Amino acid sequence: MGNEKIYTAALIVIGDEILSGRTQDKNIAQVASWLNIQGIRLAEVRVVADDMDHIAEAVNILRARNDYLFTTGGIGPTHDDITVDAISQALGVDVVIHPAARAILEKYYVDKGGINEGRLRMARVPEGAELIENRMSGAPGIKIENLFLMAGVPHITAGMLDALTGTLEGGAPLLSATLGAWAPESEIAKELRETEKAYEGCVIGSYPFFRKGTVGANFVVRSTDVDELENCRVALKAALEKAGYDVTEGGI
Amino acid sequence: MGNEKIYTAALIVIGDEILSGRTQDKNIAQVASWLNIQGIRLAEVRVVADDMDHIAEAVNILRARNDYLFTTGGIGPTHDDITVDAISQALGVDVVIHPAARAILEKYYVDKGGINEGRLRMARVPEGAELIENRMSGAPGIKIENLFLMAGVPHITAGMLDALTGTLEGGAPLLSATLGAWAPESEIAKELRETEKAYEGCVIGSYPFFRKGTVGANFVVRSTDVDELENCRVALKAALEKAGYDVTEGGI
Repeated sequence: MGNEKIYTAALIVIGDEILSGRTQDKNIAQVASWLNIQGIRLAEVRVVADDMDHIAEAVNILRARNDYLFTTGGIGPTHDDITVDAISQALGVDVVIHPAARAILEKYYVDKGGINEGRLRMARVPEGAELIENRMSGAPGIKIENLFLMAGVPHITAGMLDALTGTLEGGAPLLSATLGAWAPESEIAKELRETEKAYEGCVIGSYPFFRKGTVGANFVVRSTDVDELENCRVALKAALEKAGYDVTEGGI
Repeated sequence: MGNEKIYTAALIVIGDEILSGRTQDKNIAQVASWLNIQGIRLAEVRVVADDMDHIAEAVNILRARNDYLFTTGGIGPTHDDITVDAISQALGVDVVIHPAARAILEKYYVDKGGINEGRLRMARVPEGAELIENRMSGAPGIKIENLFLMAGVPHITAGMLDALTGTLEGGAPLLSATLGAWAPESEIAKELRETEKAYEGCVIGSYPFFRKGTVGANFVVRSTDVDELENCRVALKAALEKAGYDVTEGGI
């Protein structure tokens, strides 16, 4: 380890409903967890409005500085679904009807009133794109260059991620180990800082909580190296115990 | 209406735990909903890692193009809490101990082991900052120029937002009205698009769902003008009914 390439991805969450507070986003955590398993780190996320220029700006910045760029939202049949248009603008390509997507939609809607103008919108792709299978609801996701356009509805996104599992090149997955203690994090800040410093390939996150009338925290050690991770975990456990706290393996 | 100033805010969610998928963010929806009531629109959100340069980059871009910039996360007592340092770097000011914050913390921890190095970290602010009251857990939020630095733990953030309520200048709040129908959105895409087009000050969002074995959608009409909103809502209801769907006021 050490010199191995770290693969990164960015995510753009597209939709006025997230920015208005109407909808609680669930795709950030879902995409992040899935990426970890692929050996890819989610490096940054942006939530942008249903606005062509805002989407295109974010796309061009984030695709350039990450190995992969995911988007969620805006690939449905209605007038506020403009992700395909915005990404085609960003890439400088035309919007075309993908024949395989059209065939999928015609088949999916055969007993549901057939294809219409709105449904055909879901066959529109940036020219040169491939499809990502959607086992849930017909309309496919879209892959073009290093971009992956996914649905906004979380369970549909989940199906699309499942279809992509194992197809993206990644690096060593980021491993983690969690320790918990009924300790105010302000009491053991020094132990956390010094332990992290002593184990160069590791980072330690501290996540306080308030339960049962008292405070505690979980400490997550992260590393791509299994031995370093274990050494750091053991050292942190010892430091917390030395400071007078019982430590719960796996977190509280 | 029409020429009234629209006030916007951006939000930076700071924390590796969001990007790793470990923690499901709740602050985006919470801050968005609160801003709406203040007459301020959440225009964009970025989620960034616990990294000085990434935070500073996002701060300088977003504070310049919005009336307000909020951050959540990274103002606690541990080594991974670097928001104050990153924002001081972005603003080009020193990090100083705020005497009132120090006094608040000394008082808060008087029966809890007293002040220590970690706890004193929570009195550090960018030079020139004011404090935002934290009724939950002592350590205050921070206001400097058009920046508002809030906690990462959602219920603490909620208390800080409460302390700020009514103190920020805003414009006309964005009003909304919701209609629901057991309609596949792909069946009424045309009605949505044409209704939105006919009511210039209004936008219509379409949010599909799948429940009880069938599909439906809620349609949210948004406008800052109460009359325009009502006219658009009535027109959309009529269009959906004409297309053969029962419409539920307030959404399904």
